[in-house]
Amino acid sequence: MAEPSPEVLAQLRELLGEKGVREQSDDYLPNVILKPSSTDEVAAILRVCSAAGQALVPLGGKTGLASGHFQTDGELGLSLERMQAIEEIDTENRTMTVQAGCILQNAAEAAEEQDLLLPLDFGARGSATIGGNVATNAGGNMVIRYGMTRDMVLGLEVVLADGTVVCNLNKMIKNNTGYDIRQWFIGAEGTLGVITRVVLRLRPQPKSQNTALLAVDDFPAVAQLLRFLDSRTAGTLSAFEVMWPEFYEYITREGSTHQRPLPHGCAHYVLVETQGADPVSDSERFEAVLAEAMAEGLVSDAVLTRSQAERNALWEIRDDVLELFTQGPFIPFDVSLTIERMQAFIADIRAAMAAYEDAICVVFGHLGDGNLHVNLGNRNAENFDYDALQTLLYETVERYHGSVSAEHGIGLSKREQLPRSRSPEELQLMMGLKRMLDPQNILNPNKIFSAAQIAAASHYSPATETPV
Amino acid sequence: MAEPSPEVLAQLRELLGEKGVREQSDDYLPNVILKPSSTDEVAAILRVCSAAGQALVPLGGKTGLASGHFQTDGELGLSLERMQAIEEIDTENRTMTVQAGCILQNAAEAAEEQDLLLPLDFGARGSATIGGNVATNAGGNMVIRYGMTRDMVLGLEVVLADGTVVCNLNKMIKNNTGYDIRQWFIGAEGTLGVITRVVLRLRPQPKSQNTALLAVDDFPAVAQLLRFLDSRTAGTLSAFEVMWPEFYEYITREGSTHQRPLPHGCAHYVLVETQGADPVSDSERFEAVLAEAMAEGLVSDAVLTRSQAERNALWEIRDDVLELFTQGPFIPFDVSLTIERMQAFIADIRAAMAAYEDAICVVFGHLGDGNLHVNLGNRNAENFDYDALQTLLYETVERYHGSVSAEHGIGLSKREQLPRSRSPEELQLMMGLKRMLDPQNILNPNKIFSAAQIAAASHYSPATETPV
Repeated sequence: MAEPSPEVLAQLRELLGEKGVREQSDDYLPNVILKPSSTDEVAAILRVCSAAGQALVPLGGKTGLASGHFQTDGELGLSLERMQAIEEIDTENRTMTVQAGCILQNAAEAAEEQDLLLPLDFGARGSATIGGNVATNAGGNMVIRYGMTRDMVLGLEVVLADGTVVCNLNKMIKNNTGYDIRQWFIGAEGTLGVITRVVLRLRPQPKSQNTALLAVDDFPAVAQLLRFLDSRTAGTLSAFEVMWPEFYEYITREGSTHQRPLPHGCAHYVLVETQGADPVSDSERFEAVLAEAMAEGLVSDAVLTRSQAERNALWEIRDDVLELFTQGPFIPFDVSLTIERMQAFIADIRAAMAAYEDAICVVFGHLGDGNLHVNLGNRNAENFDYDALQTLLYETVERYHGSVSAEHGIGLSKREQLPRSRSPEELQLMMGLKRMLDPQNILNPNKIFSAAQIAAASHYSPATETPV
Repeated sequence: MAEPSPEVLAQLRELLGEKGVREQSDDYLPNVILKPSSTDEVAAILRVCSAAGQALVPLGGKTGLASGHFQTDGELGLSLERMQAIEEIDTENRTMTVQAGCILQNAAEAAEEQDLLLPLDFGARGSATIGGNVATNAGGNMVIRYGMTRDMVLGLEVVLADGTVVCNLNKMIKNNTGYDIRQWFIGAEGTLGVITRVVLRLRPQPKSQNTALLAVDDFPAVAQLLRFLDSRTAGTLSAFEVMWPEFYEYITREGSTHQRPLPHGCAHYVLVETQGADPVSDSERFEAVLAEAMAEGLVSDAVLTRSQAERNALWEIRDDVLELFTQGPFIPFDVSLTIERMQAFIADIRAAMAAYEDAICVVFGHLGDGNLHVNLGNRNAENFDYDALQTLLYETVERYHGSVSAEHGIGLSKREQLPRSRSPEELQLMMGLKRMLDPQNILNPNKIFSAAQIAAASHYSPATETPV
């Protein structure tokens, strides 16, 4: 049903010209990719597709981890790769207006040239697009300080399923004029509209960074250290990344390319960073606060960085997730839990994994945001049981009232897990909005909800009563 | 049509008992107030009302400035004054769970007792409720640092028009599991659901506060000073309040109860404050940064506070908005503009007001958020022309692409102005959601949109197509 007809393809080719359509052969991605060069072209594509009931998958940098960019039934791809312009950096209001196809790293570098910070950063920065970041409400390394992508979006331009352009390139922080519809599209994974332009809030570029790797003896001390540091650094704490030993000790194992800044054998390794405005006094205060944490017994060992090279070396350990794959196949889960439940949650997972020979069980996370990355697998590929691991992990998340997706979204791969974190009432509301905005289900169908679920959802839409 | 029938009233009295219904006589507020004591009772009320098509006005502290709590056609009032419990302060996750009728000041004080900060504060703190704050997305004095109410809400429990309870008391900062439906209800002014419980994110209680009143010679220097301070104070800037001379000089005039910390005759008076973690070094840095601002010519005169009493004295000048009413009748407008447009906007307003004898034109605002409060009136009550002033102000806001409501919402009093700040496409989407969630228009009807507008809105609802 989603497979495009020759007539629709001909119409789209005529609309977009030679440069506007690419064909490829791929098991997962759409085979025909539309490449509009303007919002008007996106709107024209959607008018053609809605008239024909033709489904589309909006594509960003294709770096998502929930398969939200996969095709499910022969849909067309809609890539904004020709809409990469940084239209404006407004230094007065400290905002940036970009086309949605703009690569995150390009946007961040352009802000930095104006001595401003786009406070969004994660591994895929070189290929992820701003549109994709907004559509997935991307998180990353600085959420503890600056929030998720949602918190940076001041204005949006979105094209709806029927081709209507909804444009509100708002730059103002306070704007209480009716419902905040931009929120509907942030994190909706391209299922409610195609994001074409974004106004982002920028921050002052930090003038100082102070980074340390800390050893902490037990989990209650980790939780206490987080509160202690956040309080003592007055909101300048920008990273609090916790690595459990299986992570740190594998990445810095004998023969690895990384240095080993702290010895093995600690219970937790915590990478902390503050971003401030005064290199000299910030550094003094950072050292004093860490000394106090050690005196209070929260930290048992510490390495402070003295140069950008030393700082990079610490972050390279934390960021070297790919190295974990040399152990064997594993699933990189992304979940959230409240802090007081984390220790028991991890203990349960560990106990269950202990039953498997050659099990991989590696945990790290952005603890300040409640976000754990849990990697479960097996050193022996033959014993790697995807379904069993998935069931184990998500059943445990549900039992601890956690979130099945902290920052990666739902897409295709977590769709079956969504009811573990959301109530039937919430799911009904979500599907109601989907049906309202995309009654033919042509925008990224089968993501978040299956087409069958959407068709069966009827409680809130269509509304049959007449308003009084 | 909204007037309750005797049968409905009898049903509600039986449901809620003697303590649950209060009658009053008021020209603006509802005459019959329902006072449920639990979420279950709110749900039961809405089941009765939806079955009867009976409209309701949800009531918070009734401190709103857009008449969102007024009755328009004999609606019932729904007050959560018996639902004030602070259910939990979670010091581990730094969250607070409250019933929506909880008074803001009570919540803030309870957080402070746990050495935590609820970063929401404004004049009506002693009577405004958390539910009302969420329903109006309240702003206030610390938005520049901590954001609006929207930015503090982690979880919500909401009762829909048909009595369905949608409960998600989420405490996690990262939770990308489908559409973020809590955003729909924040700032919706009680038109989409009745908020019954709220989980708020708390912050570390600041250990230091540094406050100063600065004189600045021209508006470009004010804008530059904002950027300078925000950059040099590393995100600890928590207030940047600008008073134009008509404000400061009237409040500190000869014979007023206030001291006059800076002489009259300056172009702008700026109250700045930082909140930090280290009293000694924060104070030193604050002075050094202000000295630098003076050396760079951004600030021409400054008074730093040395005690809480001195700090209070500065804030009392800024907060004494009621004193302005001794001048004569005026309208307190609340609008947003981008910073580069403010100077010309104010010049246009001033020029137009100069045509009136005895005109009042007093401007102040939270400049860091783009938020200006513009007070227009006349010293001679006979010459006070409400409609003319309203037209002047909002036409000018529209011409400068501003927002007709920065933090006060739309309610009843700004309804006609909404199209100046929102496009027809946006308004259609908003009304679509309203019709989906409240098909009979029983929740706070005639607020944000008139009943006639809602009835005429048909583009997105009901959806007639069948999903593919």
